[in-house]
Amino acid sequence: MEDRLAIVCSKGSLDMAYPPFVLATAAAAMDMEVMLFFTFWGLDIVNRHKIDSLEISIASNPGMPAMAKVAGMVPFGTKMVSSMMKEQFAKSNVMSIRQFVETSHEMGVHMVACQMSMDVMGVKREDLIPQVEDVVGAATFLDFAKEAKVQLFI
Amino acid sequence: MEDRLAIVCSKGSLDMAYPPFVLATAAAAMDMEVMLFFTFWGLDIVNRHKIDSLEISIASNPGMPAMAKVAGMVPFGTKMVSSMMKEQFAKSNVMSIRQFVETSHEMGVHMVACQMSMDVMGVKREDLIPQVEDVVGAATFLDFAKEAKVQLFI
Amino acid sequence: MEDRLAIVCSKGSLDMAYPPFVLATAAAAMDMEVMLFFTFWGLDIVNRHKIDSLEISIASNPGMPAMAKVAGMVPFGTKMVSSMMKEQFAKSNVMSIRQFVETSHEMGVHMVACQMSMDVMGVKREDLIPQVEDVVGAATFLDFAKEAKVQLFI
Repeated sequence: MEDRLAIVCSKGSLDMAYPPFVLATAAAAMDMEVMLFFTFWGLDIVNRHKIDSLEISIASNPGMPAMAKVAGMVPFGTKMVSSMMKEQFAKSNVMSIRQFVETSHEMGVHMVACQMSMDVMGVKREDLIPQVEDVVGAATFLDFAKEAKVQLFI
Repeated sequence: MEDRLAIVCSKGSLDMAYPPFVLATAAAAMDMEVMLFFTFWGLDIVNRHKIDSLEISIASNPGMPAMAKVAGMVPFGTKMVSSMMKEQFAKSNVMSIRQFVETSHEMGVHMVACQMSMDVMGVKREDLIPQVEDVVGAATFLDFAKEAKVQLFI
Repeated sequence: MEDRLAIVCSKGSLDMAYPPFVLATAAAAMDMEVMLFFTFWGLDIVNRHKIDSLEISIASNPGMPAMAKVAGMVPFGTKMVSSMMKEQFAKSNVMSIRQFVETSHEMGVHMVACQMSMDVMGVKREDLIPQVEDVVGAATFLDFAKEAKVQLFI
């Protein structure tokens, strides 16, 4: 059996959407089998209506520049700072989240969505991007994670 | 030895109080031995004065509806959105956090509180709910986690 | 080979800067080999210009006292609450983050910074504190984490 990486993706902010994919693609390149389990706010990452408009979480990062903090308090401010962050990533040749999803899918990364979160948040199967291969419960994640070398909750 | 699941619970918001218990009860149902280590803001979850009034973290979830974001800025707004979330969970037949604590306890999940966090935050043993079986240090958590199949920091 | 602990440090707030070091020093005292991988906002912790002025994340902790929440909305409020938290830690004889970094380094904890995050955020090698022993990619972290008994994403 291949070495496995199991990640719970529970955050839907732009900044916390990156780490799962950076780790997943690095692991897949090392021939690890990877499962990303999208749950709670993390469902937004694989929601076809939201994936391209994820916004960065300013309030929870007190270390951000004062300019950004002020921007976060005015209408559209978060959108503006999020756009700036996307440009910054692009300039450093880092893929967008959508590109990361496509690349991860091509590399064989398993993307699954949490049934309970979908029920609670009223998200339907057709709201999800096609790269999500299944809708499962916590037990399915644990079954995979138990045999994984690395498990992370993001 | 049974397969083990070890979770650090460091967040005290209503939304981040759910994942530890969803995973803990699923793992216990799979006959895994589970330890939940409550530390930092996570101590609120097992604080008898706070467990029933945990509030959702609006600011750190930029993907929330605009309505909720505005509500989060006015007095009682967070309370209102938190109530709505609780109703949503109840409608989907998801237990409340207090019910999850009781069920987890009945299933044999070990709930322990972090000594250092209690000292720093001025929380006393009698402030904790009775299901907390011990007050321990980080070394105790690591001793358990080292032999666990799955370890997560929430 | 020694038992290993691998931690991703992705948050730059004062409150989330503590858990990695509390766990790292406890693990080192148990003769575990520890790697702390600083990425995204977590880079601030090992940034020589920021390490001494990390601020606590008020907005993402709805359980904080009302006083603190109001303080978080006014200029310098976050600074004030952060100072209070530092005093609280000192009173409980908990080290400052800088002291934790120095102690961790003396105990042999490996502190490494994420290359991609540095590129995106425009952080240079000379901006980092000298205790950072290397600048690496996600693959290096995974290589270490794969052989670790405990892996956490903070």
